[in-house]
Amino acid sequence: MSSLAALDTTTVRAVGVRPAGAVCAEIGPRRYLHAGPPIALGDVVGPARGALCGALVFEGEAADVAEADRIVAAGGVAILPCQHAGAAGAMAGIVTPRMPVVVAEASDGARTFAPLNEGLGQALRFGSYGAEILARLRWMRDVAGPLLDAALNDVGGVDVTALQSEGLRRGDECHNRNVASSAALVAQLAPSIARRAQDANAAADLLAFMAGNPHFFLSFSIASAKAIGDAAHRAGEPGLVTAICANGRSLGVRVSGLGDRWFLADAPVGTPKLFPGYTLDDVCPAMGDSYMTEVVGLGAFALVAAPALSRFTGGDPTQSPKLVDELRQVTRGTSTRWLIPSEGFVGTPIGVDVARVHETGIAPLVNNGLAHRTAGIGQVGAGLTRLPLEPFAEAAAALAGRALQSPREGAGTVEP
Amino acid sequence: MSSLAALDTTTVRAVGVRPAGAVCAEIGPRRYLHAGPPIALGDVVGPARGALCGALVFEGEAADVAEADRIVAAGGVAILPCQHAGAAGAMAGIVTPRMPVVVAEASDGARTFAPLNEGLGQALRFGSYGAEILARLRWMRDVAGPLLDAALNDVGGVDVTALQSEGLRRGDECHNRNVASSAALVAQLAPSIARRAQDANAAADLLAFMAGNPHFFLSFSIASAKAIGDAAHRAGEPGLVTAICANGRSLGVRVSGLGDRWFLADAPVGTPKLFPGYTLDDVCPAMGDSYMTEVVGLGAFALVAAPALSRFTGGDPTQSPKLVDELRQVTRGTSTRWLIPSEGFVGTPIGVDVARVHETGIAPLVNNGLAHRTAGIGQVGAGLTRLPLEPFAEAAAALAGRALQSPREGAGTVEP
Repeated sequence: MSSLAALDTTTVRAVGVRPAGAVCAEIGPRRYLHAGPPIALGDVVGPARGALCGALVFEGEAADVAEADRIVAAGGVAILPCQHAGAAGAMAGIVTPRMPVVVAEASDGARTFAPLNEGLGQALRFGSYGAEILARLRWMRDVAGPLLDAALNDVGGVDVTALQSEGLRRGDECHNRNVASSAALVAQLAPSIARRAQDANAAADLLAFMAGNPHFFLSFSIASAKAIGDAAHRAGEPGLVTAICANGRSLGVRVSGLGDRWFLADAPVGTPKLFPGYTLDDVCPAMGDSYMTEVVGLGAFALVAAPALSRFTGGDPTQSPKLVDELRQVTRGTSTRWLIPSEGFVGTPIGVDVARVHETGIAPLVNNGLAHRTAGIGQVGAGLTRLPLEPFAEAAAALAGRALQSPREGAGTVEP
Repeated sequence: MSSLAALDTTTVRAVGVRPAGAVCAEIGPRRYLHAGPPIALGDVVGPARGALCGALVFEGEAADVAEADRIVAAGGVAILPCQHAGAAGAMAGIVTPRMPVVVAEASDGARTFAPLNEGLGQALRFGSYGAEILARLRWMRDVAGPLLDAALNDVGGVDVTALQSEGLRRGDECHNRNVASSAALVAQLAPSIARRAQDANAAADLLAFMAGNPHFFLSFSIASAKAIGDAAHRAGEPGLVTAICANGRSLGVRVSGLGDRWFLADAPVGTPKLFPGYTLDDVCPAMGDSYMTEVVGLGAFALVAAPALSRFTGGDPTQSPKLVDELRQVTRGTSTRWLIPSEGFVGTPIGVDVARVHETGIAPLVNNGLAHRTAGIGQVGAGLTRLPLEPFAEAAAALAGRALQSPREGAGTVEP
């Protein structure tokens, strides 16, 4: 199967919610995951540092955030990219052994996971670490995670790619707008949650948590996107983007046929719509693995299907068709399952071709959330951001060099 | 308040689910409601006859459908329009004392109700009366209705007009596409359903029923639309359509300033998208009170917001903007709350002006479901249907005559 076919046809089911340490050998005590391309512990940005500190308290490694901060300062925790461990983490993307993660299984048998979404605004993934954040994480670990796992077992798993397809019919692009898909997921799991709960209050609490979080589906969506992107990467067709992620300093792009190398640029800030009271000076540059949704043709690549998103991210929804059509100039295919109803069910553009990005100068767009640059504060806004061109230019050069070096899998075989 | 303002600003909450006989004095033993303008018992069409027979068995008035049919043939049941009793019934719209109905309360204090939706396809409202239809109605009466009532009490009622506004952001037009709003309603009520259920299985069964019915929200939507239309009618600004309904023989239009008169035409069949195996000969002409959604600016008047609906009703979603813009020529206003995100949040057209319909020859469009013309079969398709012009022409003439007779509230005061 070509990478493009893998992007278009890999299906993904959510099969459980488990403690991260139980599904990932790379995670252990004081050995955590983070979002984005690799970064040294000393270089992590404010919100990731806040999340690491909160995580150390959550794991019982530190009595409080001050002690946790001393542990980080002393290099007392190892960090590894989610992307290298089969995971996708939104924003800071810190994943620790006892955090509940959505486990997804792709049609090719590969498994991925993503930490369960805590909600908007004040959340560990945005660098918040207050007492109520940690209390919620403990409840997610002790109540929400196990009950969701039981419910997912009860229904035999949930077809996430089908929910993503349907999401586009319900005004979601499954990255920054997930509200209809979250409700769809509640509807799909609610009977089993009611049936499998130890008591009615636990069921009611979990259902209220899910229903009250318009981004609850995001974890499912990015676990799915990671599985699809990885399948495309393994397929090896040269020159397609199979991962995009950022850590607040660097934005990284991974390209099929070019191994595990990350092509890097400074993480962009963009021109976000900020929550009241914040300015651009408050904003930490792009972070997170959730751009995996754009990699697979959702998010900004499906912007037309989610016109109401502009209320959250700014922008004019009547301009979305033009933006998405522009992206078609740098993609190799059209999805046969992410369909835009308002355009007569035409598919979203899929398979970003690094050479075409380089040649046209049209960089991919991504939807994103933005954290305050200081640890402990949280989300400050959301936006629609144009990626820097450098990683694509560099990948295109590497691809050309690779083609020169190995003519048999060179330029002549790039087109599907 | 003008009728146009009433259409735009009347808000509606769902406050309970009660047996119809407990909320409506007009309903009693062998005294039922039906959808559409008034009709003699002997003239009711096949699906309404099927629904009446099923209803008589459900109420314990007949041992079986054959006995029920003899009761109907002998004139042993009285029928009254839902529209005259503060109710809106989808399709056949038969409402009996023990049927659970959604009770809605408008911001002007008026109450309306609509029978709880049974699901798609085989259902009493489409004229089906099989054993499984009646068993489901009994479960709805004994389990679903009381538990939904408890849940609605628990949350202090649900803001239906807010759900309708949000529905347009989630790809529903809240008449023939309700799937996202149904999931939103599940999400809003699920915690209380889990908490208030006698046992976990009852909660699970009700949640599965709600989640499995993409039209569950329809009852809420038409109860709301009926409340809004009635408020506009009471406001009395001459010449606006405040109700549209049909009984399978006649389509009726009610106009503010012209009392309770129904302006009639033959019920249209349209050019529906039929389920496999059916032909136009199978189709019963338009029935039901659910065109109340079009009256208030939803349904076909919000078609642009629900492009995926075309999969169900046929048609080309890229043509919807043109169809809705055409309706703007015959309406007096633009909704400030039913907003079309893809068009930059412009409101849907509201307030159909009968004189403009008559002058322009542009009849309103409605979305609709279609029943088999024979009792006992059920739904055969769905469509987008152009209404006949006659009722509007006749109402325009009546309005002109009224203006001549009472100049002080005549033509000079028609425009808001």
